[in-house]
Amino acid sequence: MRYELFYWPGIQGRGEFVRLALEDAGASYDDVARRKGGINRMLAMMGDRGKHPPFAPPLLKAGKLVIAHVAEILFYLGPRLKLAPRDEVGKLWLHQLQLTVTDFVKEIHDTHHPLGGEFYYEDAKPEAKRFTGNFLKQRAPKYLGYFEHVLKKSGGPYLLGRKFTYIDLSMFQLIEGLRYAFPNAMKRIERRLPDLLDVHDRVAVRPGINKYLASERRIPFNESGIFRHYPELDA
Amino acid sequence: MRYELFYWPGIQGRGEFVRLALEDAGASYDDVARRKGGINRMLAMMGDRGKHPPFAPPLLKAGKLVIAHVAEILFYLGPRLKLAPRDEVGKLWLHQLQLTVTDFVKEIHDTHHPLGGEFYYEDAKPEAKRFTGNFLKQRAPKYLGYFEHVLKKSGGPYLLGRKFTYIDLSMFQLIEGLRYAFPNAMKRIERRLPDLLDVHDRVAVRPGINKYLASERRIPFNESGIFRHYPELDA
Repeated sequence: MRYELFYWPGIQGRGEFVRLALEDAGASYDDVARRKGGINRMLAMMGDRGKHPPFAPPLLKAGKLVIAHVAEILFYLGPRLKLAPRDEVGKLWLHQLQLTVTDFVKEIHDTHHPLGGEFYYEDAKPEAKRFTGNFLKQRAPKYLGYFEHVLKKSGGPYLLGRKFTYIDLSMFQLIEGLRYAFPNAMKRIERRLPDLLDVHDRVAVRPGINKYLASERRIPFNESGIFRHYPELDA
Repeated sequence: MRYELFYWPGIQGRGEFVRLALEDAGASYDDVARRKGGINRMLAMMGDRGKHPPFAPPLLKAGKLVIAHVAEILFYLGPRLKLAPRDEVGKLWLHQLQLTVTDFVKEIHDTHHPLGGEFYYEDAKPEAKRFTGNFLKQRAPKYLGYFEHVLKKSGGPYLLGRKFTYIDLSMFQLIEGLRYAFPNAMKRIERRLPDLLDVHDRVAVRPGINKYLASERRIPFNESGIFRHYPELDA
């Protein structure tokens, strides 16, 4: 199966959580919107043509099937890429963890856009500072501490125990992104996350990921994505 | 199967999307945290005891299985309550729509808490006004217009076509809640949603829902839940 991924070009964004799974598994896929004419194809799929119009990218096309939402795409791909357990209970637990990542990612996005994506960052800077102050003090430690706790309960080395799954790839991306956006705050927050950092380091040296990170397919972090480095927000 | 639902007592909140499915299907369930000692049981399940500790309520217990996140709970319950199609493609499409509801509900929550749930409403009122202004002008019409579009593409009368599913119950709850929170703005927004209003009206007269809404099990909307009526926010 050759997959087609549709996501805004120029940023890692939410699409990156899907890319990491495809890359780790060595799956065959096209990153369609990064090619000539690809954005138009993506917009057409969101418009009037398909039977099941998605609300927003990322989208995955697998044969005739088109699905959206990172957590659903990973739920679908997981067993096919051998990045999920086989039993129903395990699959639901993994999906549940990924849905918590979804919520976390939305809050990370809101550090620079607390009033909505329709405002420019410059037009809501004091609000971004208040939001981010609370985020770095309360929310990020709460979410990350939760995943550290899950890891301890699993017995490690991965979030589901001995089985490596797509949630471990998402943990890698969260830590990479938060280090980029908030290097100062993360130095402090990381101290309480020894097992999560171990997952991060294990992911970084996996052959598929290692090769991907060194390639041009990995778009550098930048100030158009989810994880943005605005020094004034990083206490 | 007798289900156990765990959610904060005193509000409809996110738990209500699950309650509506259980009630429509006439399922047997306990709303545990509304009984004596129930909150402690809920907190214990989120703590150190279980193998798969959830991040936040609502939680559903079905036999030994404990799952969290509204969309995952409905994904699990859907086929069991005959509120989902049987085929995989249909189930994924339904889940995808519910995940879009999840995103919408988060934005609805943020109308009164744009800087984070840790701030009192009174401490971020100007921010709530700016957020809500944009929400009512851009976001709510975008989300609701999307669901209206989906309905048109399905051929109706329900979001998946002829098959009634849990997403229709969520549409009912969204419209009820938004009417409660923003009666003025909704009068304007609703004009473009004839088919969605038809779904709302069909849901209201379903026997299970009709009985539920008239019962004490339906907690009235209030200013502790997701949908809050603050007149100053309703343009």
